[in-house]
Amino acid sequence: MSLDRIFKAESVAIIGASKDETKQGNQAIVTLLAEKYDGRIYPVNPKEKTILGLKCYKSVLDIPENIDLAFITTPAHTLKNILTDLGKKGAAGAVVIASGFGELGEAGKRYEEEIVDLARENGMRIIGPNTPGIINMEKGINLVGLKNVPQGNIALLTQSGNIALNLITEASLKSQTGFNYYVGIGNEADIKHHEYLEYFTNSPNTKVILMYVEGLREGRKFLQQASRTSQVKPIVLYKSGRSVKGSKSAGSHTGALAGISAVSHSAFERAGIIEVNNPGEMFPVAESLALLPMLKESSIAILADGGGHATIAADYLTELGIRLPELEKETRDKLAAILPANASLANPIDVAGGTDKNPAVFADCAEILLSDTNIHGLLIVGLFGGYGIRFAKKLTFKEEDAAHRMGKLMRQSSKPIILHSLYNYAKPHSLDLLRYYNIPVYESLEIACQCMGALATYGSYRREYHKEGNFQLNWGAKAVREGQEIIDNALAEGRKALLEHEAKELFRLHGVPMSKDYLVTNEDEAVKIAEDFGYNVVMKIVSPHILHKADAGGVMLGLKDEHAVREAFKKIIKNSNKHHPGADIRGCLVSRMSDKGIEIIIGTKTDDQFGPIVMFGLGGIMVAVMKDVSFRVIPVSEYWAASMIDEIKSSVVFDGFRGRPPSDKQAIVKLIQKVSEIIKAYPLIHEIDLNPVIVHEEGLTIIDARIMLSEEDVEKKKRLSISLGEVKE
Amino acid sequence: MSLDRIFKAESVAIIGASKDETKQGNQAIVTLLAEKYDGRIYPVNPKEKTILGLKCYKSVLDIPENIDLAFITTPAHTLKNILTDLGKKGAAGAVVIASGFGELGEAGKRYEEEIVDLARENGMRIIGPNTPGIINMEKGINLVGLKNVPQGNIALLTQSGNIALNLITEASLKSQTGFNYYVGIGNEADIKHHEYLEYFTNSPNTKVILMYVEGLREGRKFLQQASRTSQVKPIVLYKSGRSVKGSKSAGSHTGALAGISAVSHSAFERAGIIEVNNPGEMFPVAESLALLPMLKESSIAILADGGGHATIAADYLTELGIRLPELEKETRDKLAAILPANASLANPIDVAGGTDKNPAVFADCAEILLSDTNIHGLLIVGLFGGYGIRFAKKLTFKEEDAAHRMGKLMRQSSKPIILHSLYNYAKPHSLDLLRYYNIPVYESLEIACQCMGALATYGSYRREYHKEGNFQLNWGAKAVREGQEIIDNALAEGRKALLEHEAKELFRLHGVPMSKDYLVTNEDEAVKIAEDFGYNVVMKIVSPHILHKADAGGVMLGLKDEHAVREAFKKIIKNSNKHHPGADIRGCLVSRMSDKGIEIIIGTKTDDQFGPIVMFGLGGIMVAVMKDVSFRVIPVSEYWAASMIDEIKSSVVFDGFRGRPPSDKQAIVKLIQKVSEIIKAYPLIHEIDLNPVIVHEEGLTIIDARIMLSEEDVEKKKRLSISLGEVKE
Repeated sequence: MSLDRIFKAESVAIIGASKDETKQGNQAIVTLLAEKYDGRIYPVNPKEKTILGLKCYKSVLDIPENIDLAFITTPAHTLKNILTDLGKKGAAGAVVIASGFGELGEAGKRYEEEIVDLARENGMRIIGPNTPGIINMEKGINLVGLKNVPQGNIALLTQSGNIALNLITEASLKSQTGFNYYVGIGNEADIKHHEYLEYFTNSPNTKVILMYVEGLREGRKFLQQASRTSQVKPIVLYKSGRSVKGSKSAGSHTGALAGISAVSHSAFERAGIIEVNNPGEMFPVAESLALLPMLKESSIAILADGGGHATIAADYLTELGIRLPELEKETRDKLAAILPANASLANPIDVAGGTDKNPAVFADCAEILLSDTNIHGLLIVGLFGGYGIRFAKKLTFKEEDAAHRMGKLMRQSSKPIILHSLYNYAKPHSLDLLRYYNIPVYESLEIACQCMGALATYGSYRREYHKEGNFQLNWGAKAVREGQEIIDNALAEGRKALLEHEAKELFRLHGVPMSKDYLVTNEDEAVKIAEDFGYNVVMKIVSPHILHKADAGGVMLGLKDEHAVREAFKKIIKNSNKHHPGADIRGCLVSRMSDKGIEIIIGTKTDDQFGPIVMFGLGGIMVAVMKDVSFRVIPVSEYWAASMIDEIKSSVVFDGFRGRPPSDKQAIVKLIQKVSEIIKAYPLIHEIDLNPVIVHEEGLTIIDARIMLSEEDVEKKKRLSISLGEVKE
Repeated sequence: MSLDRIFKAESVAIIGASKDETKQGNQAIVTLLAEKYDGRIYPVNPKEKTILGLKCYKSVLDIPENIDLAFITTPAHTLKNILTDLGKKGAAGAVVIASGFGELGEAGKRYEEEIVDLARENGMRIIGPNTPGIINMEKGINLVGLKNVPQGNIALLTQSGNIALNLITEASLKSQTGFNYYVGIGNEADIKHHEYLEYFTNSPNTKVILMYVEGLREGRKFLQQASRTSQVKPIVLYKSGRSVKGSKSAGSHTGALAGISAVSHSAFERAGIIEVNNPGEMFPVAESLALLPMLKESSIAILADGGGHATIAADYLTELGIRLPELEKETRDKLAAILPANASLANPIDVAGGTDKNPAVFADCAEILLSDTNIHGLLIVGLFGGYGIRFAKKLTFKEEDAAHRMGKLMRQSSKPIILHSLYNYAKPHSLDLLRYYNIPVYESLEIACQCMGALATYGSYRREYHKEGNFQLNWGAKAVREGQEIIDNALAEGRKALLEHEAKELFRLHGVPMSKDYLVTNEDEAVKIAEDFGYNVVMKIVSPHILHKADAGGVMLGLKDEHAVREAFKKIIKNSNKHHPGADIRGCLVSRMSDKGIEIIIGTKTDDQFGPIVMFGLGGIMVAVMKDVSFRVIPVSEYWAASMIDEIKSSVVFDGFRGRPPSDKQAIVKLIQKVSEIIKAYPLIHEIDLNPVIVHEEGLTIIDARIMLSEEDVEKKKRLSISLGEVKE
C-alpha cells in the first residue's frame, strides 16, 4: 500500500484540536495555516465551536466528507474509538503522538499491537505512536508545529524529535538547502523504516534521505530496501545506542532494540548506506550529497592560504582514503606563473601569501587545478571570505568575483568544490554567493573533509555496485530430507543441539567435503576404525549431555597404536561419567588427525535487528582478544563471503605468511556459503559454530561442529526476515 | 635565561615600521596603541619622521635608550645588521616574521643557524623566524596586529598563524574566557617549545596551555618540561602531520619533522598532556579545563529532556571511559517526586516533558543529582536555553532562574557542570548567565562529551601520578668496558653491526641471563659442542656480510645427532658462500633449541623528535600485520616497561591463554629495562632488534639479537636528548 494518501493528504482531521497555544493540537493547525496547506483542515474537539477561525467538529463522524489523514493528540486510551470512527470515514492514516506504548514494557507492547491491528482492520496505517508528527513541505502539511523549516531536497527520518529539531535548526542557520519531508518515526509500531524509505526513493524531489536510527524493528527489510534506494539516491545514517548505556537509553526511548555495532556497520555498508560517526556530520554530509556532483575518482586537490589547515586536511583526507595526487607539470607551471616563489606546488597547494592582495587568485588556482586530469574535486581551506574583514575592505569585491567564478567553474567542470572558511560565522556576502552556486561552506575543517569523503564513498559505491544487495531469506530453500530428519530426530529426543557427528553429517549432506568420522560404542570397534585409518587418530565423547567435550576430559589426540586407542576409550568414558554422572553416552567419535594449517572459526548468530548473521575470524587470540572478525547478514553470495576474508586485518596469513604455504581461501568462501545455505534451509537451526576449522594448502577440515536448535525463535526469525514472495530477486 | 624581559618588555622597537595599514609594521603599532601598552614604542624606518603620531627613528642605534624587545618585519637578508645593532642596545629578544629559512631547504637552514648564533653572541633570543608574532594581554603587548583578542587564562602556542586566528576567533565568539599569552612559534630556530612551556608554567595567571604542534625540534626536552608542567596545570595539544601528505605539508610549513603518531601519543600521555584528536576540540577542551573543577572520579550523570541526545551522549561518554552509575535510592525518590511518571530515573535521566512547563526543574534535578555520592559531575543535554524560544516567552525567566541556581550549585559542590544546548546559536540570556558562572555551553554534543572526558583524564592524571616522568638520557651511564670494546672492535673492522654472538655477549655483560652459544669454525668443534649440549641444537652462520641468516640458508634447527650436525655445518657454509660469494665467514654459532613459549619482539629506533624509543609486541602477525605494539621513549622505568606489556591488546596471552601456562612477564619487564640501559650506555648503538625472544613460564630466551651501530647519528641523538646536568632528577 502506498503512503501517498498519507503524505499528500487532501484533508486532515486534528483530533484533540485546542485553543491553547502550548498544545500540539493548536500548533499543528497554526503551521498548516502558515504553510498554506492546500487541503481541508477539520479540527475535532467536542468542547469547541471554532478554533483559529476554523469550524470545529464534535466527533470524527461529524466531518462532512471522507478524510485522508488524522493527527491524533489525545491520550493512548482514547485511541480505539477514534480509530473505529476514522475507519468509517475512510482515513488512510493516523499520526499518533501519544506515548505509553511499547517503550513502557509488555502491557504497552500488547496495547500497541491491538491498536495496529484495529487500524489495519479499518484500512488505515499508523505513524508512530510516540512521534512528533510528519511534514511534507511541498504540500504544506506540517503537523509538527515547527515554524520556519527550510525547504530543500532532503527527506528526514528520525527516531528522536530533539535530533530532528537539531537538524532543522542547523539547516535554517547554516545551509542553502533544507528538507522536503520529515517523519518522526516514533515506536515504528506499524509503518516501518523500509516503507518510508521506499516512499522517499520514489519521491522525485528527494535527492538525499537523512536518518537518525536508534533501533530497527525489521532490519532485514530495511537493508533490502536501502540497497535498492542506494542505487538511486544516497542514504545518510547515524546510528546511536552503541554502548550498553546508550542502547538502554535508546530502548527506553523508542522501544526498539539496539544491535551489535560491528554487525550493523558491515550491513549498512553492504546496503550502500553512508554511515556517519558523529551527529555533527549528519546534516553537512546530507547537504553535500544533495548539492554537489559525486567524485568521479577519489583524488582531489587541497588549496590553502596557510600551512596549518592544509596539514590537518591532508591528515583527514588520507585517513578517509582520498588521494592527493601530484600535479601535472602543466598545472604546476601555470600555478607557478601566478603564485609567489615560496608557494608550495605540491598537493596540498599553499599560496604562501599569493592571495593576500587579491583573493580572486583563488579562482585562478581553482580553474588551473580542476583542469588537471588527476584532480577530481577541490577543497579550499583557510581564510577565504575573510580577506575583506581581516585585511582591507576593498578585497571584499575580489572575493565576490572569485565566488562567482568558482561557482560557474563547478557547474562547467562537474567536479565538486567544498570550502572551509574561518570567517563563515561573519556571514560575508562572498560565502553566500558560493552557497548560491551550491558550494557548501563549513567552519569545521573536519566536517568539510568528511563531506568530501562522503562524495568519494557514494561515488565509488555507484561506480562499483550495479547490483542490488540480496538480504532475502527463503526459509527451507535447499533443505535435504535426511538433514531435516536429523534435526527432527534430535528435537524428538528433546535435544537442543545436534551431536557432533550429526552436525558434520548435515554439512556432508550439503556437499561439504568431510573427512569421515565413525561413531564407535566399544574398544574393539574403536581399534578396528583406527586400524583402517592407519592410526594417528583422535577420539571424542559423543553425548547429548556433554557439549564442551574437552572440558569433560572427553577428547584424546594423536593416538598412535592399539594400546593407546583402548586406553583412550576407557579414559574418555570414565572422565565423561565423572564429569556428568548419568550422562547419556552414545560412544566415541574416531577421526583421523587433521593435517596442519591455519585455524579459523565460522559461526552464526541471530541478531535482534537483522536476523541470521555469519561471523568469520582466525582461531584463538584473533577472535577472542583482538576481535578481528567480520560479520555478514545471511545470505552471503560468493562475493560477500570472499569479502569477509579480506575484511579481517589478519587475512594476510592465508597468503602464506612467514614462509608458510598459502591457504585455500576458496574453500573458506565455499564453507561460508554452505553455512549460509544450511541456516536458510532449516529454520529450526538457532546457531552454528564451526570451531576450529583447519584450512590447508588445499581444502579444509572441520574439526568440531556444533549446531544448536530452537523451536522458539522460528517465528521471530521469520518476522525479522523477508519471506518468499515479498522481495523479487 | 628567563623569557621575562621579552614577554614583559618595557620598550619595543618596531623595525620596518610603516604608514601602510596593510603592513605588519603598521598593524603592530596600531594594536600596541589600542591595547594601551604601558611601555615605550620605537618605530624604526629611515624614510619616515613619524608614524601614527610616534617619532620614527632612522636606525636602532638612534633610539634614545636601551630596549627590551624588537619586532622585525624586514626581509631575511637584512637581519644580520639589525641584530648587531640590537645587541648594542641590549635587547633581550627579537621577533622575526620573515620567512625563507629552514622551511626552504639546506641553504635556508644554514642561514637560520647563523642568525641564531649571531643573536646569542649579542645576548639575544629569537622568536621565530616565520612567526606572526607574540601577544601578552596583561601587559598590552600585541605584535600580531590582531584586534579584539578575548582576554582569559589560556596561553596559546601554535606553529600556524591560521590556527591561532581560528582559535582566537572561536574564543571571541563563543566563550566567556580567552587568552593571556600567544606565541607564534614559527620555525623554532632558537627558543624551543619547552622553553615557552616552562615560562607559562611559572606564569601565575595562566591556567591552561593550549598548543598546536606540527613537529618538535627538541621533543625530549619538551616531554621533560611537559611532565613537570602537567603537575601544575594542564597542557592541551593537537598534533597534525599524521599522514605522509600531512607531514610533508607540515614540513614545508615550519621546517620541522613529523614523528610516528603512535610514538607521540604514548609519549604525550606519559608526560601528562591532554591530546585532542580533532582541531574543533582544542579550544573547548582548554576552556573547560580553565573554567571547571576537575572530576574527582570518572562517574557523572546525564540529564536530558529527550532521548536522542541522551543516547548519543551515553555512547560517547562510555567510549571515553566515563561511568554513568545507577543513582542512589534517595536520589531516585527525590527525582520521582518532581518528575512525571514516565520519566527515566536510570542514568541518563530523561525528564520526559517534566521541564516543559517549568525549565527551573532542571536546577532542582541538578541539585538532587549532585548530592548523590556516586555522581561527580553533570552533563545537561537538549533544549535548555530554548524553552522561552520554542514554547512560551515567559519560560525565559524560569530558565534564567535555573541558570543562577545551577551556577551557584557548581561553586558549592565543586562538581563540574557542562551544558549542551540546541539553542546556543540564538544566544539566549540564560546561557550567558551560565557562562557568567563559568559553566561552558556547547552546541556540539560530541564536544561537550570530549570536554567532560578531559576533566576526567586530567583529574585522574593528577590523582594517580605524583612523580614527574623521566625523559633524561645520561649517555654512557652504566657502560661496561668489555661492552665498549666489542663495539669499538666492530667499528674498527668497518662494521655497522655486531655479530650475533657479540650482541648476545653485550646483553650477558649487562646481566641478562643468556643461554650460552658457541662460535665454532669446523665440523669437529661443532660436534663437540653439540655433544656437550646433549644434541637437539641449532646452528647459524656468523658473517658480517650476512645479516638475514635464514634468507641465506644459514640457519638449521633441531639437529639431533652427529651426522646431522656435520651435514648442517657443511650446508650452512655452502649456502652462505653461494648467497654472498666472498663473504667473511667467521664460523657457525651452536645453541641449544629453546624451550617452548610465547614469541615476542623488542626493538629500538631513533625517533626524529624524541630520539631513542623502544618497541614491544608479540612475534609474527601481531607486530607485522595487527600493529599491536607499544612504544616508549627511552629510558623506561619498571613501571613504564610493565605498562608496555599491558598496553598491547594481545597481552592476555601472557596470563595463560587457552590452557597454556602463564608466561614470565617480569622477565620481559627486566629485558625492556636492559634494552633501555644498553641504549643509554653506548651512544654508538643505533638500533637494537631482539627478534624473536621466547618467553617461558620462567625466564626467556633471546633467539636472535641484532645491534646496529652508527657513528653519524651520535651528535643528532645527543641534540634530541637531554645531557647530564640540564635536567635535575
